[in-house]
Amino acid sequence: MSLEKFFCPDSVAIIGAARDEGKVGHTILESVMNSGFKGSIYPINPKADEIHGIKCLKSILDAPGDVDLAIIVIPGQFVLSAIDDCAKKNVKAAIVISAGFKETGAEGAKLEQELFEKAKKYNMRILGPNCLGMSNTTCPVNASFSPEMPDDGVIAFISQSGALGTAVLDWAKLAKIGISKFVSLGNKVDISETDVFEYLEDDDSCKVITAYLEAVSDGQRFIDVSKKVTKKKPIVVVKSGNTSAGAKAVSSHTGSLAGSSKAYEAAFKQAGIIRAKTIRNLFDYSTALAYQPLPKGRNLVLITNAGGPGIMATDVCEENNINLPALEKETVEKLKEFLPAAANFHNPIDVLGDALADRYKKALEIIIKDKNVDAIIVLLTPQAMTQAYETAVGIVEVANKLNGEIPIFTCFMGGKAVKDGVDYLTDHKIPNFDIPEGAVNTLRVMMNYHEWLVKKDVKIKEFDVDKKAVKSIFDSCRKAKRLELGENESRLVLEAYKIRIPQAVTAKDIKTAKEFAEKVGYPLVLKIDSPDILHKTDVGGIKVGIKNDAELEAGFNEIINNVKSKKPQADIRGISIQEMIQDKQETIIGINKDPQFGPMIMFGLGGIYVEILKDVAFRIAPIKESDAREMIEEIKTIKLLKGARGAKPSDINSIVEIILKISQLVTDFPDIMEMDINPLFVKAEGSGSIAGDVRIRIAK
Amino acid sequence: MSLEKFFCPDSVAIIGAARDEGKVGHTILESVMNSGFKGSIYPINPKADEIHGIKCLKSILDAPGDVDLAIIVIPGQFVLSAIDDCAKKNVKAAIVISAGFKETGAEGAKLEQELFEKAKKYNMRILGPNCLGMSNTTCPVNASFSPEMPDDGVIAFISQSGALGTAVLDWAKLAKIGISKFVSLGNKVDISETDVFEYLEDDDSCKVITAYLEAVSDGQRFIDVSKKVTKKKPIVVVKSGNTSAGAKAVSSHTGSLAGSSKAYEAAFKQAGIIRAKTIRNLFDYSTALAYQPLPKGRNLVLITNAGGPGIMATDVCEENNINLPALEKETVEKLKEFLPAAANFHNPIDVLGDALADRYKKALEIIIKDKNVDAIIVLLTPQAMTQAYETAVGIVEVANKLNGEIPIFTCFMGGKAVKDGVDYLTDHKIPNFDIPEGAVNTLRVMMNYHEWLVKKDVKIKEFDVDKKAVKSIFDSCRKAKRLELGENESRLVLEAYKIRIPQAVTAKDIKTAKEFAEKVGYPLVLKIDSPDILHKTDVGGIKVGIKNDAELEAGFNEIINNVKSKKPQADIRGISIQEMIQDKQETIIGINKDPQFGPMIMFGLGGIYVEILKDVAFRIAPIKESDAREMIEEIKTIKLLKGARGAKPSDINSIVEIILKISQLVTDFPDIMEMDINPLFVKAEGSGSIAGDVRIRIAK
Repeated sequence: MSLEKFFCPDSVAIIGAARDEGKVGHTILESVMNSGFKGSIYPINPKADEIHGIKCLKSILDAPGDVDLAIIVIPGQFVLSAIDDCAKKNVKAAIVISAGFKETGAEGAKLEQELFEKAKKYNMRILGPNCLGMSNTTCPVNASFSPEMPDDGVIAFISQSGALGTAVLDWAKLAKIGISKFVSLGNKVDISETDVFEYLEDDDSCKVITAYLEAVSDGQRFIDVSKKVTKKKPIVVVKSGNTSAGAKAVSSHTGSLAGSSKAYEAAFKQAGIIRAKTIRNLFDYSTALAYQPLPKGRNLVLITNAGGPGIMATDVCEENNINLPALEKETVEKLKEFLPAAANFHNPIDVLGDALADRYKKALEIIIKDKNVDAIIVLLTPQAMTQAYETAVGIVEVANKLNGEIPIFTCFMGGKAVKDGVDYLTDHKIPNFDIPEGAVNTLRVMMNYHEWLVKKDVKIKEFDVDKKAVKSIFDSCRKAKRLELGENESRLVLEAYKIRIPQAVTAKDIKTAKEFAEKVGYPLVLKIDSPDILHKTDVGGIKVGIKNDAELEAGFNEIINNVKSKKPQADIRGISIQEMIQDKQETIIGINKDPQFGPMIMFGLGGIYVEILKDVAFRIAPIKESDAREMIEEIKTIKLLKGARGAKPSDINSIVEIILKISQLVTDFPDIMEMDINPLFVKAEGSGSIAGDVRIRIAK
Repeated sequence: MSLEKFFCPDSVAIIGAARDEGKVGHTILESVMNSGFKGSIYPINPKADEIHGIKCLKSILDAPGDVDLAIIVIPGQFVLSAIDDCAKKNVKAAIVISAGFKETGAEGAKLEQELFEKAKKYNMRILGPNCLGMSNTTCPVNASFSPEMPDDGVIAFISQSGALGTAVLDWAKLAKIGISKFVSLGNKVDISETDVFEYLEDDDSCKVITAYLEAVSDGQRFIDVSKKVTKKKPIVVVKSGNTSAGAKAVSSHTGSLAGSSKAYEAAFKQAGIIRAKTIRNLFDYSTALAYQPLPKGRNLVLITNAGGPGIMATDVCEENNINLPALEKETVEKLKEFLPAAANFHNPIDVLGDALADRYKKALEIIIKDKNVDAIIVLLTPQAMTQAYETAVGIVEVANKLNGEIPIFTCFMGGKAVKDGVDYLTDHKIPNFDIPEGAVNTLRVMMNYHEWLVKKDVKIKEFDVDKKAVKSIFDSCRKAKRLELGENESRLVLEAYKIRIPQAVTAKDIKTAKEFAEKVGYPLVLKIDSPDILHKTDVGGIKVGIKNDAELEAGFNEIINNVKSKKPQADIRGISIQEMIQDKQETIIGINKDPQFGPMIMFGLGGIYVEILKDVAFRIAPIKESDAREMIEEIKTIKLLKGARGAKPSDINSIVEIILKISQLVTDFPDIMEMDINPLFVKAEGSGSIAGDVRIRIAK
């Protein structure tokens, strides 16, 4: 059901409306009454005749007309029966302000589960429980426990924490930031952040979606919906709770490097969500996105009346891959016509310390015509002759002429001396920052978002694979009560998904081994084949670089002896003899199951790069080709793959293909819990990649 | 000369005092007059009789008494003769506000050089030119072009940019931050940041030194003085101009990785200077350092009335290595006595959303007695019943009781609803932050500074070395018009400083080579010995792993042929044959000359770690043992040296020793321009390190 009636009800019942001031049921009634709400209001209170001049009803069933939205503020234990009443009255939307649910322990969780079931049964949308409610400044209606209605605006704010919601609304009011809708999610028994995102996609009153989240409800849907919404309007999220916690016992490399924080990072990237590190960043980004057009490229021009702030801004540009382009010859000539000789006519443009408002304005008027300019930041320090207010007026005039072509930010530094100017800018939707770094960082976010918007959306590639083969392998493993696949089983899975593996044979005796050697040629690799041994190196179960028959025989016997002494109980199936891949880079591709988002794919260079430097990238399956390519580019050691120190470039295309095949595999088989291809040998460009070793663990 | 008379003059002359309002010479006179300055004021203006009721003098020579400080505001070209007059009057301190010097080009630079020479000649201390002047709120005197006297306080602020200085003072005023002294450095013809630091060390009115710097004047003195001052009071610096610029043509690895930004980073670390990334950070850090005691350890307790901000703070703690310790059993019990059952009694302590001021206060009173607590942050969101102001009052009461034992910060989030509380906190020197991240980051800075203060200061170790030998090598190189040392010369330098090198011989023929092999044993390394070849690998001039006589002979001939074909002009002295070091880690130690700070020492792991990951650490020579150890610990790949993947730990002590010896070498010989020991082979713990190859380039 759409949330339309929820956000824009024609009638509201407050179940638990209270006579006593200071009671939540009283505040909520007042909130609704004072919000300019035009529809019918039904206070429900069996013990009161009227509150604030509005007649109280004994029950919601007594309401003379339809009720679109019920706000429930009675003690937790009575909520379920109130919901039953609502259902009888055919109410389709309810806000449960009441606490006493999941947040209080096992009993509350049970109550919440029942609430969930009722919501499904009655096909009723429920916000909360344990929330502040919702307010909508465009409808308008304030169905929340938050004392004051926010100022009207174009930024929607969703908060998983009620307290933080209040703080943010309070802050926004002071900073004159308008809010279109505020939603306090509470325990999210039904309505989640994703539901609200989905609704806001087509909500014209909202230009920017912002949220404070602590966890996400349905990871895959969160990504899918957000990916769609962010192609239309930006979503800016502060996500807290990034500590490493969750010391799950994991045996794979991928598992030990994964974790909720990596999963969120990957999910936000794939969904095009802008992540703000702090609430201050949330404000900075969302106001800029709401009030200024997106820069079409990464070219920034700085105008300043002092060197210092210009240098500061330049420093941050370099860190953030923002260019300070040279200006067109014509621009420079025009600037020279009126700026003093001592001025700097090149980016950053220094209009000098004695610049009055007109010098700033004239310079701006010239610069906005330059084709090399994607964005402008005006820096100002309050010097003896500086006209902060007049300069602000000039900037606003130029910005108005611009017609939304180029974003303009300002950084008026100082206190009292610049206050009037800053206020004027704020009132006219020019984002001002107190430090140059804030302006540049916000611009970076907008530049990145623009790149996200123009990025072509391609469908997820599908490879022609043999799903049946994999299914039967998994089935037979489970039948044998094994969840770890053996060497050969794992190889068969890769073969079914057309991932190259080294030529190999499992030899039970030295004769078979030698026959294989004759066919494939030396050098060879020997490995123990046993379903009981996960880390072959630890038991001396691997020999590499076997160069001739003598070494083959010696190595064969040594491995058998090693394993027998270190793992006497192990079921030894033989020695797997493989061709040895030469001239290659060792990489790793892994899969780990995130409880929130499902299968996460990891990529990195092998060996110490993954173990010590933890230089790996994650994405959540299923992924697109561009995701695969980006995750490869993301690792710091990418230069090694691109051919550092005169080496040939590695076959990055083949890595992309294997990542996509693995993505398809884990999407086809959600029962794959962990998987490591380690090493994945990557040969020179055009020569492909070969899975050297693979481990797969499936669910029960 | 001390700067005492400069900062606290008994008499001030304003050379260029002007009648017309709006003129700098007028503003400055007013600044002095309105600042509460108690001494004599002499306006110097040959064309005016009096200004603002003070009699003007035709010349400073006419002043009836001594003049301690002259403020010069006449056009640049007249400044030198004014300085001559000052000298005649025996003035020992002058502020040159006037512009028209170095900043305007070659002619101005010449003028500035003459000003410099006059300062030396007359033994006169000069601030500027091209500066805003100085103000001292404790003396008091405002000898600056900055319109308003800052509020009295304990933070000194030094700015290399006048404009930024004004902006910061303006901001400080609004934020109610008091300033003890403000110094605008200008072009720094004489008085530098270091001079001011040195003066402020013993200035009791100053508790914290802050500065905005773009470059430092005398790098080594800057480090030496700052190192001393920071052991007494903190120095917080915003240093801008960190872009990679300066594409110096450098041939060594170290040179290509070094650069001004790395040098400043190293210098600040070694000097104990706190680096603030932005002006906002500068304020945050300096006020906290000024108003709150230092935490004695890294244990932080959080108190909050909502989960969200607590999680946010916890996230930043983890990133910054700040502990959230468990509270003592007794503390928890006492908290349980009065907090509601639903509260969280463990760190972070949640006093719940309905907490009134008394709940916060009681909790605080209990917590400050807990031995595990080094610092406290009080988080507050404005909920329905929250008493921001009363809570603030309670916090201040507890803080006063504390007697400077534990720092307390607050983070009252929101706008109007918390404003009274925040104002009360600010007035009572409790630093409040609008986001939890700000509070935690500031605390980290204080924790690190405390660790710097208690770190034992040890003398720089001196090794018994053969300086004469090195000198004669350098001399003979220069005589031969070579600035790059040959293979053997470089080895001799290392031997003179007792750095181990592999056993080696330079063989002109295969016979000598075989004799050496018999003595030392295989495997061996072969390298071309030629002063004309820097990068031996590039010309096929190296063979490693020579295992027997046959390989020795083949390798010997191959190298000669390679070099002859690729560098026919090269002067080949023979083949250097070395023992091959086995079971080792390859590292690199390098030296690069920074124009500001002198010799910089680099350390990192060799090969791709240095080339691709740029995983290196820098310090400026001379360095102490603790510096050497810290720089080794700083690299990300340190785990490889400590024995990752079951390998034996490497001999880190021997690296420390070699770094110290190199530090001594470049301090003894400042004419060493570049030096790379690459690779430095580090063997297992206790087995030492051996310089595999070394390159040294000396100055003309």
